[in-house]
Amino acid sequence: MNFKKVPLTAIRRLSIYARMLAGLEADGKQQVSSRDLGETASIPSTQVRKDLAYFGQFGKRGSGYSVKELGFRLRKILGIDRAWNVALVGAGNLGRALFSYPGFSKQGFRIVAVFDNSPGKVNKSWKGTRIQSIKELSKTVREKNISIGIVAVPASGAQEVADEMCKAGIKAVLNFAPKRLKVPTGCMQANVDLAIELENFSYYLSKLR
Amino acid sequence: MNFKKVPLTAIRRLSIYARMLAGLEADGKQQVSSRDLGETASIPSTQVRKDLAYFGQFGKRGSGYSVKELGFRLRKILGIDRAWNVALVGAGNLGRALFSYPGFSKQGFRIVAVFDNSPGKVNKSWKGTRIQSIKELSKTVREKNISIGIVAVPASGAQEVADEMCKAGIKAVLNFAPKRLKVPTGCMQANVDLAIELENFSYYLSKLR
Repeated sequence: MNFKKVPLTAIRRLSIYARMLAGLEADGKQQVSSRDLGETASIPSTQVRKDLAYFGQFGKRGSGYSVKELGFRLRKILGIDRAWNVALVGAGNLGRALFSYPGFSKQGFRIVAVFDNSPGKVNKSWKGTRIQSIKELSKTVREKNISIGIVAVPASGAQEVADEMCKAGIKAVLNFAPKRLKVPTGCMQANVDLAIELENFSYYLSKLR
Repeated sequence: MNFKKVPLTAIRRLSIYARMLAGLEADGKQQVSSRDLGETASIPSTQVRKDLAYFGQFGKRGSGYSVKELGFRLRKILGIDRAWNVALVGAGNLGRALFSYPGFSKQGFRIVAVFDNSPGKVNKSWKGTRIQSIKELSKTVREKNISIGIVAVPASGAQEVADEMCKAGIKAVLNFAPKRLKVPTGCMQANVDLAIELENFSYYLSKLR
């Protein structure tokens, strides 16, 4: 299996399937069909089977998948069968919300360091995590083996933070600032634009009028 | 053009193009090719042309698109050429961050009402917006012509809030709680799972090891 050939959208759907499976396992379910797996997320069963087929053979024709085994394998494929250390830059409202977001640690993403450049925030503490000066980024990334960075600063400072992160050896940057960033080769980046979901709504709502 | 036939992923990409165009317009650019439009977002030019073709003829073969005109038309298609009133339920850290998120109002989404069920929060004020009891939801949705709701409460209370929203006449629910919700026919819903983006990273980072 050549992992480069798997479309990003399929990886995204694997995450959704992994969540469904965790829910089913908690409910005590043992087997699940591709139809049931896709249904809650409005994904056709043919798509579910195609997505899984990128990664080999799962389950038996006609009897569906073992909830436990498929869940285990998807978590392994997604790299969430282990913990990842994350640095958060930006200790404002959004940073605070992300720091407290239970969905990250649930999937093994641990925010182990928080940075800001405001003297009023540096050395304050969030649940035992000291807010550090951005100048300490490189050193902390090495010491704490951090591979992922979250940018939660205003748009105007976001590119600079991303540059610092990649220079410090962070391999993947998740950006919440409403601005597209450029990162050097060897560093990945993704934008979370919270308004895009609302625009899906406004598109459909406009048609209803 | 039958709007139901346009895939959701295409609408999402239209939002990305609209952002690119706004940036280009601010930079004083007049024309743009489908290749340039897709490039920053790593979308192939064939896909850009296909996405736009759902909505008719834009630009001229060979000379690209007028930045201003295409931007105007995409904003109209996406329904962001006007304002939408939004209700936010959940006045915790995440709610506060979403309330302050500049990306919403920039695209015309105005959080005009905030609700919580905690007596310690109700009647407090955020930049002039009084935090209301969830009991006032229906009345406020009518009075303020609110069509979109944002759920920023813990997972355990999310379904109940979504139910209340749909009952109150809200047509689209954006859920930030790490839990899939069910909404009745006539009400749309979308989940924002902030960890999914990180899982794209962990998938690729696992392969690098």
